[in-house]
Amino acid sequence: MQQLKERILREGKNLGNGILKVDGFINHQVDPLLMDACGQELARRFKNIHTTKVLTAEISGIAPAVTTALHLGVPVVYARKHKPITMPDQVFLTLTPSHTKGRTVELIISPEYLGHGERVLIIDDFLATGATILGLVRLAQTAGATIVGVGALIEKSFEGGRVALEPLGVPIESLACIDAMEGDLISFKD
Amino acid sequence: MQQLKERILREGKNLGNGILKVDGFINHQVDPLLMDACGQELARRFKNIHTTKVLTAEISGIAPAVTTALHLGVPVVYARKHKPITMPDQVFLTLTPSHTKGRTVELIISPEYLGHGERVLIIDDFLATGATILGLVRLAQTAGATIVGVGALIEKSFEGGRVALEPLGVPIESLACIDAMEGDLISFKD
Repeated sequence: MQQLKERILREGKNLGNGILKVDGFINHQVDPLLMDACGQELARRFKNIHTTKVLTAEISGIAPAVTTALHLGVPVVYARKHKPITMPDQVFLTLTPSHTKGRTVELIISPEYLGHGERVLIIDDFLATGATILGLVRLAQTAGATIVGVGALIEKSFEGGRVALEPLGVPIESLACIDAMEGDLISFKD
Repeated sequence: MQQLKERILREGKNLGNGILKVDGFINHQVDPLLMDACGQELARRFKNIHTTKVLTAEISGIAPAVTTALHLGVPVVYARKHKPITMPDQVFLTLTPSHTKGRTVELIISPEYLGHGERVLIIDDFLATGATILGLVRLAQTAGATIVGVGALIEKSFEGGRVALEPLGVPIESLACIDAMEGDLISFKD
């Protein structure tokens, strides 16, 4: 998606160790018009898979997941990293390593909002190693739901997430696929 | 806002101690169409205050802040509760008591995205005691920005947040103002 790629080239910053800073429009400050355009494009790419629910992980996944779900007309569930007091005692919980935090985090979903028969589209800001998305896959499958697609704003193809997700046999889409970051140079796959 | 009030009456749950569970459409599962309608209504109410930036706190503030910002056509910044590695060493940080967590949390903003001359509209899911919103006010004022309005989806008037915020002298808007919750009975101010 040209608009997102241009923004990454203009404002993204390679911090080294595979970390791309996009805090000016995705991860701290959010450009809602760009997010809406990204959600519209992801919804377009996944319009034929009959999604009943979008699933993401707090925190940075929320904005693109909400705009994608808005254009698909389905609810979105965001997995929590800490169990709030409003959640029942019995939950779906999985552990996943966090690339940017350097530790393991919990992903928690209430069985109230994900269950049998749901057709789940996973949306996140980044597809890197795929660890967070695989955590969401485990949660959805434990809940008895079916994964029907995976979408991300930005893919870092050199971190192998797509290969890790391919056994799912579902369409995987990213709006900007980065195949190399060296110093100030960020290059896209196509 | 009638649509939100009806949803609260239909799906909201009074858990006691002033806690209203709205996990089915705001705090865990999000109804993006409702969030968009709420954002549109908040944008309409604040259209004359010349906002340059919407400010909220992660996590549950993100969805309504993004949709409000989308309809106002301005960026949104969400204060982080943990400093990510992408943030500079020098940040704006304040402490605020969390009603639902029973402890103090940090609110952190990078000076890269909030500064002098900004006209800030604060948007959050709840206006309860006003503690989180006052934390955001302190951050914005420290950054040299001006608060021009405060908006929330749901106000619990019996927790005194509006009174705490009135000294700011800015318009305060909520889309559903609850004045009492007793057992299964939730009643609105108007």
